[in-house]
Amino acid sequence: VTAGHPHAPAFLARSAAVIGLGLIGGSLARELAARGVRVTGADADEATVAAALAEGVIAAALSPDLRELRDAEVIVLAVPVDASVELLARLAPHAHRARLITDAGSTKAAIVAAAERLGLGARFVGGHPLAGDHRSGWAASRLGLFARARAYLCPAAGAGAAAVALAAGLWRSLGADPAVVPADAHDRQLAWVSHLPQLASAALALALRDAGHPRASLGRGGRDVTRLAGSSTSMWTPVALENAAELARALAALETRLAHLRTALEIGDRRALDAVFDASRAWSEAAASV
Amino acid sequence: VTAGHPHAPAFLARSAAVIGLGLIGGSLARELAARGVRVTGADADEATVAAALAEGVIAAALSPDLRELRDAEVIVLAVPVDASVELLARLAPHAHRARLITDAGSTKAAIVAAAERLGLGARFVGGHPLAGDHRSGWAASRLGLFARARAYLCPAAGAGAAAVALAAGLWRSLGADPAVVPADAHDRQLAWVSHLPQLASAALALALRDAGHPRASLGRGGRDVTRLAGSSTSMWTPVALENAAELARALAALETRLAHLRTALEIGDRRALDAVFDASRAWSEAAASV
Repeated sequence: VTAGHPHAPAFLARSAAVIGLGLIGGSLARELAARGVRVTGADADEATVAAALAEGVIAAALSPDLRELRDAEVIVLAVPVDASVELLARLAPHAHRARLITDAGSTKAAIVAAAERLGLGARFVGGHPLAGDHRSGWAASRLGLFARARAYLCPAAGAGAAAVALAAGLWRSLGADPAVVPADAHDRQLAWVSHLPQLASAALALALRDAGHPRASLGRGGRDVTRLAGSSTSMWTPVALENAAELARALAALETRLAHLRTALEIGDRRALDAVFDASRAWSEAAASV
Repeated sequence: VTAGHPHAPAFLARSAAVIGLGLIGGSLARELAARGVRVTGADADEATVAAALAEGVIAAALSPDLRELRDAEVIVLAVPVDASVELLARLAPHAHRARLITDAGSTKAAIVAAAERLGLGARFVGGHPLAGDHRSGWAASRLGLFARARAYLCPAAGAGAAAVALAAGLWRSLGADPAVVPADAHDRQLAWVSHLPQLASAALALALRDAGHPRASLGRGGRDVTRLAGSSTSMWTPVALENAAELARALAALETRLAHLRTALEIGDRRALDAVFDASRAWSEAAASV
């Protein structure tokens, strides 16, 4: 074991296939390979597959028909969420030996429902490590990405205890902190704690761009707020669309808060501004002690 | 010289008074003291003054009547912007020997106008190092805070070239990058690149709080977006009020951008979402190359 928490338990599988070798899939493949797991992999980008082979992260590339999946104990889908459902249907015929089929997408209801429809529910446990950032792709993948990260697990209806335990063990072995949550509840929560900050950062970026202000004119604080604006379109558009209803509610709540602040400015309401800054600081500091 | 850029020029003053020893004033006092400048100081918080004395950062505390300012070549106001104007009036009778009177506030029009009214214009150059973050107070002050930071200089009408050169030299000696800009233009720009991100971060914090999500439930990206929400109320309410008109325009622009995103979600407009994420990423990456 060359990475991860020194006291992390071993991962109890000897082979895994990772489909999609971007920030999350690539990092996962690196972690598993570093623990002696035989990893096979695939990616839509040929140069990524070549790099993963050349670096010894994957032992072999998967064929386009995915037939090598028959040898994998664990199959991980790490592609944009709108590609996952179709991919799951394509791999199902080859996955009869897998003890765990999982994914790493930011929305979970659609993929979990698809696994149930496809008859994979007993072995499907959706996964979502809260470890993304504004970087993306194989070049951004790295060891250590999952250390101390929350990893949500969303078992399909009828998922076996062994599959859930294997999924939890997978993330725990990488230093992450797994937590089981129903897929619908996951998506509702993530609309607020992940997807809303992403869209707020992008909207702020465009408001600044429209007004003629480049990111280089921002200070440290402004750069923090807009860091997520550099995230991947191919990842985020599908996530936003899959979680559109709850995310629209979250956006409306943020608009209301901003309008409240704007009104306070327009009427010079010092007390309202003090209350906003006091409350936002209290929220920040409560978190710091957790 | 024990800190700062190895090629930074020396600061050409032997004595300075810093009023307000928070994040900015405290850091400035530390930098000047580390360069052999005799620094005197004051702060509304007695424990802060005691700490600054005990750590040898300030050589002496200023009396309540500020009479010791008569010995200072440079006087720096580093208090909340709503306190600066009154403070400037109080110190004016004692500042006849100062070659430079400056400040470090995030809004510049009001303090520059006050300096002109008080007859201090020839020696007043407003300052604003873009080096703040969500931390505040003496405990957060540190050496190195200003390295590579933009430092805006807003000379009063009639400011002498020597005063402007001394202000520029002050910031350059600390490794910062000074740039002269008219006070009004400064305030309009900062409404967008600094004050808007601050308010967006606070509004997002309150939207999350209202929906029952603690900061600890956020991932790395969400923590970035909400980091500024922990900022100081006593600093930010006065800044927001002084810059209310332009800041209200900036907030309205952000609200419009968020409503546009919300509509795209509500009607499932994939192209509109792609366009937002592509454009925000392009804005992020253009900045990275500057």
